[in-house]
Amino acid sequence: MNHLLNKINHIGVAVKDLKEAAAKYVTLTGISDYETEYVEGQDVDVAMFHVGESKIELLQGRTEASPISKFLETNREGLHHVCYEVDNVEKMIAILTEQGYKMIDTKPRIGAGGHKIAFIHPKSTNGVLTEILEV
Amino acid sequence: MNHLLNKINHIGVAVKDLKEAAAKYVTLTGISDYETEYVEGQDVDVAMFHVGESKIELLQGRTEASPISKFLETNREGLHHVCYEVDNVEKMIAILTEQGYKMIDTKPRIGAGGHKIAFIHPKSTNGVLTEILEV
Repeated sequence: MNHLLNKINHIGVAVKDLKEAAAKYVTLTGISDYETEYVEGQDVDVAMFHVGESKIELLQGRTEASPISKFLETNREGLHHVCYEVDNVEKMIAILTEQGYKMIDTKPRIGAGGHKIAFIHPKSTNGVLTEILEV
Repeated sequence: MNHLLNKINHIGVAVKDLKEAAAKYVTLTGISDYETEYVEGQDVDVAMFHVGESKIELLQGRTEASPISKFLETNREGLHHVCYEVDNVEKMIAILTEQGYKMIDTKPRIGAGGHKIAFIHPKSTNGVLTEILEV
């Protein structure tokens, strides 16, 4: 059996105020030169802190239409999703679908940084919204 | 400014049925030989899946007294906490306390694998229950 996940690419944290949250994570991580990005597909502003081979991504919705804004309507700030790097998103979707996993994305779409991504439905992963990403 | 977090040690996922959850993560990760452990201090049974330099830890409370059982009384299954490796837990507690962070553990205690650990209160980390661990 081959290992299917190469590493944790990032952990996504939903926050209400990106600047305030980023200031806290500057202290926690010791990283002052964090990166920022606007991801149009999710309508989110992102602050990224590198930790080892992974990143912590703080996410704030720019408008009410953002999935992060919607999440915060019914949930508190906090852990939102985890993203794993895989060799091939399409193959991984096929493997998971065959095993009865429910996919939010049945085909890869383009996420942050132009990478192919897909989301697995949290129903299939014990409540964890799970993203797979091909680098 | 020095980086204070060396890597993500693990992500903790609260589950109701460890066997059922582990079966799902065997498929997701492609890892069939996952490790198991009983952590007395938290009264939890743990299944650990290595992903890159980190682990996914599935956590089921053994009795109602376990923090994980209590978490699941008011929350759904899913992401529970994130744990970062640091050089020195005591020093990190001092740095965070000086910066006004609220610590659940103001002194290190012994966690899984005999490591020194401490938890930061989620109030100080935008809703993310955060553990620091010294290897």
